[in-house]
Amino acid sequence: MDNVVVVACTATNGIADGVAEILNVPLVKVESRTLPDGESYIRVPVDVSDKTAVIVQSLYPPQDKHIIELILTMDAVKGYRPGSIVLVMPYLAYSRQNKRFLPGEPISIEVILRMLRSEEADAIVTVDPHRQESIKSFNGNYAIVDPISLFAELFGKRSKDMVVLAPDKGALSKAMDIASVLKVQFTQLEKERDRKTGEVRLVGEQNFRFEGRDVLIIDDIVSTGNTVIQAAKFAKLNGAGDIAVAASHLLISEETYKRMVESGISRVVGTNTVPCKYSETIDVSPLIAEALKKIL
Amino acid sequence: MDNVVVVACTATNGIADGVAEILNVPLVKVESRTLPDGESYIRVPVDVSDKTAVIVQSLYPPQDKHIIELILTMDAVKGYRPGSIVLVMPYLAYSRQNKRFLPGEPISIEVILRMLRSEEADAIVTVDPHRQESIKSFNGNYAIVDPISLFAELFGKRSKDMVVLAPDKGALSKAMDIASVLKVQFTQLEKERDRKTGEVRLVGEQNFRFEGRDVLIIDDIVSTGNTVIQAAKFAKLNGAGDIAVAASHLLISEETYKRMVESGISRVVGTNTVPCKYSETIDVSPLIAEALKKIL
Repeated sequence: MDNVVVVACTATNGIADGVAEILNVPLVKVESRTLPDGESYIRVPVDVSDKTAVIVQSLYPPQDKHIIELILTMDAVKGYRPGSIVLVMPYLAYSRQNKRFLPGEPISIEVILRMLRSEEADAIVTVDPHRQESIKSFNGNYAIVDPISLFAELFGKRSKDMVVLAPDKGALSKAMDIASVLKVQFTQLEKERDRKTGEVRLVGEQNFRFEGRDVLIIDDIVSTGNTVIQAAKFAKLNGAGDIAVAASHLLISEETYKRMVESGISRVVGTNTVPCKYSETIDVSPLIAEALKKIL
Repeated sequence: MDNVVVVACTATNGIADGVAEILNVPLVKVESRTLPDGESYIRVPVDVSDKTAVIVQSLYPPQDKHIIELILTMDAVKGYRPGSIVLVMPYLAYSRQNKRFLPGEPISIEVILRMLRSEEADAIVTVDPHRQESIKSFNGNYAIVDPISLFAELFGKRSKDMVVLAPDKGALSKAMDIASVLKVQFTQLEKERDRKTGEVRLVGEQNFRFEGRDVLIIDDIVSTGNTVIQAAKFAKLNGAGDIAVAASHLLISEETYKRMVESGISRVVGTNTVPCKYSETIDVSPLIAEALKKIL
């Protein structure tokens, strides 16, 4: 780590500081402002020539501004002729647009990763992207951080007769992972469309018992909250006890948080990949530092 | 033009429609919305395979969002396998950050152009970029549209004893061009710093007569308005008659417009590269269509 410097871009939510401290390497904070016409101005005030520059930028809202500020920072760093550039993007925007669901759509996540690679990112580190396969389209070294161990630690103490609930198919493998660590049961909901009315309803495993059991709903991203709210209502209706939600990335408004509470969710846990004042937040800096040690 | 289609991205201010109509080619409007979490969603709803896709997107505020929407649209177009991609960017954001004024700054305009080239733009068309040399860094075909002829047409009728004023060094060649077409005098202001107080004041040519003459202040971009306001005050102080401002790109707020009027400016003329309700606006579509005819 002799030659490493952490460059905090405009959106790190404390993670750049955390990683630099754990790795015991210098931290450079980018100077930034929005110019009167709305353009982003950034400057890297310290010479990073010949260094491995680890640029930290989380692509939470406003995503597009944070992407452009990252790309400008990369160019600023390149002006110094660094040894290499590693990008840490705790939250990776556009990861859900990972294929052309309809003709004429972009594959947005591939566009973003391709741009970063063209701009000479040698490696990337991200936390729980929506689909791991998307990251493979990055034509360079990469590491993916999984916060499941942090959630398991938090919920391990109260796991007696708890059940982990995947609110949809996409969350199943995550639910299996944490259930396996916690040594508790998991179950899954599926969306079923009524052939006559077109209405979508949730269906659970037959005879699965929620009655009196605490439920941990697990997901990668919560934004509108609709998926976890429907799952919570389903569990409540079936007699569940306390309901908690743990998700890697919480992009929720106060309004969404209130709707979550009203649906019976009593605890919301996320990570600091995205700033969120309506949740308990776990710091992913130690896991990111570990991942960096492996690829640097 | 048999094989050309104009694709209107999210920010064309009517120019995509204008260009398609003049060239008599089909116009496809991108479907777009902002998702609940703030990401941009776009879709190109018409198959453009084997076509020359002319994507129109003006990079006015919010610049970063418009840049990302353009890049996503390019990927959506590429999904159809077009014959080639031409980008029309009437207003090109970040053109003023065209060198590292301080160490550690990015060369933002080069970053943007490089990204567009990497994403397979074959050619670009833009209107009066801040520095023409910046555009040369685009490693492909390009055309630059100069709206000076439109301004000359508008001011030609009232040019008797008018003087064209360059408010700073950067605007001088533009002032010379329009003065030459209008067959009137031009003059220039320079910023001079007082060695004792550090104050900046404007200095004009010695013995240049503003007294009783109408003044046309010319510039490429007006955003804070400070440069043209100082020039207007200078001209007024020296006895000028009516003062007009003509600029290719007006990124002004109502507040800035009011300050311009208070400084003695009686007429503000811009183009439709940027939406501006505080000015007379000239349509650049015909000039862009001409430029496209040459490079297509």
